[in-house]
Amino acid sequence: MEIRDLIDLGQLTQADTMQLLDMAQTVKNNPSYFIDHCHGNIMATLFYEPSTRTQMSFQAAMLRLGGKIIGFDNPGNSSVSKGESLKDTVKVVSNYCDIIVIRNPLEGAALAASLFSRCPVINAGDGGHLHPTQTLTDLVTLFFEKKRLEGLTVGLCGDNKNGRTVHSLAKSLSKYPGNRFVFISTPQLQAPAYILDAIKANGCEYETSQTLEGVIGDLDVLYMTRIQRERFSDAAEYTRQKGVFILDAAKMRHAKKDLTVMHPLPRVDEIAVDVDDDPRAAYFKQTEYGLYARMALIMNMLANKNAARPAVVQSTEPFVCTNDRCITKTETYLPKYFTPAPGGFLCGYCEHKAQ
Amino acid sequence: MEIRDLIDLGQLTQADTMQLLDMAQTVKNNPSYFIDHCHGNIMATLFYEPSTRTQMSFQAAMLRLGGKIIGFDNPGNSSVSKGESLKDTVKVVSNYCDIIVIRNPLEGAALAASLFSRCPVINAGDGGHLHPTQTLTDLVTLFFEKKRLEGLTVGLCGDNKNGRTVHSLAKSLSKYPGNRFVFISTPQLQAPAYILDAIKANGCEYETSQTLEGVIGDLDVLYMTRIQRERFSDAAEYTRQKGVFILDAAKMRHAKKDLTVMHPLPRVDEIAVDVDDDPRAAYFKQTEYGLYARMALIMNMLANKNAARPAVVQSTEPFVCTNDRCITKTETYLPKYFTPAPGGFLCGYCEHKAQ
Amino acid sequence: MEIRDLIDLGQLTQADTMQLLDMAQTVKNNPSYFIDHCHGNIMATLFYEPSTRTQMSFQAAMLRLGGKIIGFDNPGNSSVSKGESLKDTVKVVSNYCDIIVIRNPLEGAALAASLFSRCPVINAGDGGHLHPTQTLTDLVTLFFEKKRLEGLTVGLCGDNKNGRTVHSLAKSLSKYPGNRFVFISTPQLQAPAYILDAIKANGCEYETSQTLEGVIGDLDVLYMTRIQRERFSDAAEYTRQKGVFILDAAKMRHAKKDLTVMHPLPRVDEIAVDVDDDPRAAYFKQTEYGLYARMALIMNMLANKNAARPAVVQSTEPFVCTNDRCITKTETYLPKYFTPAPGGFLCGYCEHKAQ
Repeated sequence: MEIRDLIDLGQLTQADTMQLLDMAQTVKNNPSYFIDHCHGNIMATLFYEPSTRTQMSFQAAMLRLGGKIIGFDNPGNSSVSKGESLKDTVKVVSNYCDIIVIRNPLEGAALAASLFSRCPVINAGDGGHLHPTQTLTDLVTLFFEKKRLEGLTVGLCGDNKNGRTVHSLAKSLSKYPGNRFVFISTPQLQAPAYILDAIKANGCEYETSQTLEGVIGDLDVLYMTRIQRERFSDAAEYTRQKGVFILDAAKMRHAKKDLTVMHPLPRVDEIAVDVDDDPRAAYFKQTEYGLYARMALIMNMLANKNAARPAVVQSTEPFVCTNDRCITKTETYLPKYFTPAPGGFLCGYCEHKAQ
Repeated sequence: MEIRDLIDLGQLTQADTMQLLDMAQTVKNNPSYFIDHCHGNIMATLFYEPSTRTQMSFQAAMLRLGGKIIGFDNPGNSSVSKGESLKDTVKVVSNYCDIIVIRNPLEGAALAASLFSRCPVINAGDGGHLHPTQTLTDLVTLFFEKKRLEGLTVGLCGDNKNGRTVHSLAKSLSKYPGNRFVFISTPQLQAPAYILDAIKANGCEYETSQTLEGVIGDLDVLYMTRIQRERFSDAAEYTRQKGVFILDAAKMRHAKKDLTVMHPLPRVDEIAVDVDDDPRAAYFKQTEYGLYARMALIMNMLANKNAARPAVVQSTEPFVCTNDRCITKTETYLPKYFTPAPGGFLCGYCEHKAQ
Repeated sequence: MEIRDLIDLGQLTQADTMQLLDMAQTVKNNPSYFIDHCHGNIMATLFYEPSTRTQMSFQAAMLRLGGKIIGFDNPGNSSVSKGESLKDTVKVVSNYCDIIVIRNPLEGAALAASLFSRCPVINAGDGGHLHPTQTLTDLVTLFFEKKRLEGLTVGLCGDNKNGRTVHSLAKSLSKYPGNRFVFISTPQLQAPAYILDAIKANGCEYETSQTLEGVIGDLDVLYMTRIQRERFSDAAEYTRQKGVFILDAAKMRHAKKDLTVMHPLPRVDEIAVDVDDDPRAAYFKQTEYGLYARMALIMNMLANKNAARPAVVQSTEPFVCTNDRCITKTETYLPKYFTPAPGGFLCGYCEHKAQ
């Protein structure tokens, strides 16, 4: 795996992914072998918005490898609140550490950070844009539970419109042959067209459903996400619909014996607690597997810390990104970086349309 | 010591306690022998309410053993503020660590957490209910300073009504022969009847006093706690009384040469600073000894991490706990767990009456 | 270096400083040699006001030496907010650790802490008073970039009136022969007389300038600091003047080829980003060098942890410090400590006049 920074899971070839999955398996089988593997190395976790879960999973991964941790999770309490630029923070912190894990509410922030870092950067979430280690965790979970990433019927139930993890998992899995997708949600929360197009372009099939109960019997994998109350058109509609997309022991009776139930967590009530002790419930194991996935990733990236960064070619055209949540809106010194796309150009940071 | 989780000091036999005290002594005498003892292990400190002092003492203990630390101390800043259940947090975090230290404002929270944890759980305070490592620290301090836990006249001065640490220490010490207790406070803040009954049942004697000066000369140990201003009936009463229960150099002149003065800290003004340099003042040493106590405890618990958990037998009776600060009030999925008591049943989590 | 606590850089002899610079050089050249040097040691970072940058630099330094970290950065969230005295916190925490790094908004706080600590104390900033490791970082940067601390023409541009780091650096460098200082700022923000007097007393020369452009060509070193908008007499004056003291690529064209540009960071806009890639810009390297400086300091102090503390002789005179931001105003139990000065006495903690 010859990449320095992990911003987008799309950077990885299938061979890269398989290498990470194999390494995660090795770590799972022999954790004690790795307890000093990153001795002498420091990870900085720069969390510009709090995410205790994600931060602890990265910290535990680094500590399990014998490394150490610095960082912040409360920018209101740090120099960054005094108006320091992302560039300056990254310039300084990358002098203190060997690998940076960054989470930031602005889209494109991780790529922007990687431009100024002396050490590898892992994207731990840049707004609603990308969160590659969540998807890597999902792939590792399938690999451990199903022993394969292909020939699976995968149900995706919940908010398929806004769910970043759902989009990323569907895109990733559609690159493997024989996968079939069932998008289960209300009409308003169906997967966007570009995701469906990507699945078709990769040669996979999909269908949609407005009930979970009707399709659960067909599924090898059921990936649950939360539907936020605010997404429903009105309160009556919410009350009428919400039960349809809640997984409980009753619905599990219609499912295959070897179904794998996943959830990126935290859950609210979209999976009833009466499912927790079902052997098909994999959502807590998923967090354990995510630890192995992150350990494999960290080892790979530290081994490749001198890999070349892809050049960011500065545009000479007067493009402006149209996305208000793009990192270029606040970090105005960033090089203008746009990539060609059908009908125009996309912002190289957040992948929204440029004008 | 064959327990997996330390929720209540009452779980320990006297032999268990003596084993911990001996181990604490060994650690005190040879700290350098233990600097890698827990190498490769991670402690998670889950502090649902801030307690810097307690959290630092556990962290220092784990680090002194060569272990590592993850955790949070600011739940408003973490996933748990997004409505995640205690169960889910513990399920996930126990995948990341080898031992959990939990502090929570709700009574019974540590026991509840232990039901879902894959690794040992230490109660670092569950509301006003239990705080076993504070009492363990107190016992270790007596063991180091007095060389015995028996035949002691122990003064307990301050808020004996509401003081969790006072109750726990008195109950623990009353199991050793020849101890005598002097409860020193205002009439409104005397020790509750069930504590006095427990002392009598264990064969120890006690008396009460409304002045410190009159009894200080009899004491081998003086355990000071704070009387909060709000506990007094009115401001005039507070002004009139407060000096009576403040320990200062003048009162120390009436005390034995080998008195041991203890305090769980932090203090406000119930011990004057002119006592700090008196060789009988043990309250700062107490925090050092607490470090050894926690190191001994952590080593023991990691060695017994596969010990059986006591079964929590779910009640089939329709009992409801009467305590509004009980963990069962908010974590409604918890198994109904009640224990028989004279005249009815007690909640198995918080030990309040069930109805 | 035979000091136990580092409160003020003035405690160090030139031989002490040179020893630290040499050690920092060794660390820079052979970082892997030191990765276990402080194995088994714990640093406590007690940050009574947040300073993510400074705290991370100390943490990284300790971790790079194989040590471990406890501490707080958010006193509103810790026991100290419950009214605990500085003395009690230091008494307790120094039982948990081997070295304390303290930052506190009150002047003299670090010295006060050192009186009660069982282990060495490093001052990481006590209000506007002292911040010795910033100046140590500046000296190490000059040593690495210029290979000497003497015979330098040093420009100090920005707020020379209120800039603590500027005063400390000028005082330190004026002890070396042949240094010349150019103070560049508005008339209102010129360096105070006692700094200029100290420079003269040490046999160095200085001049003042109200433009950067006019003098930049003479400089070997340019130390930039921020001029806060509030420092200008009115908004119009601010708008008229601010560009004069901003360093940008245009002004850099007038500078020597081997100029070294420094800044204590964080910057706002006093250095334009078009200077960042200029090889003469040393302000990001400065943070890396600060890491080596702190590593050298920590090793020295842990090696001398049993060095004698200078006695603080309690005054019998009824002096009172006149400085409202002095630590003696809130920590009233502190010993009265005053030092003779021309025309009266100075507070031993904050160095303000006593009455």
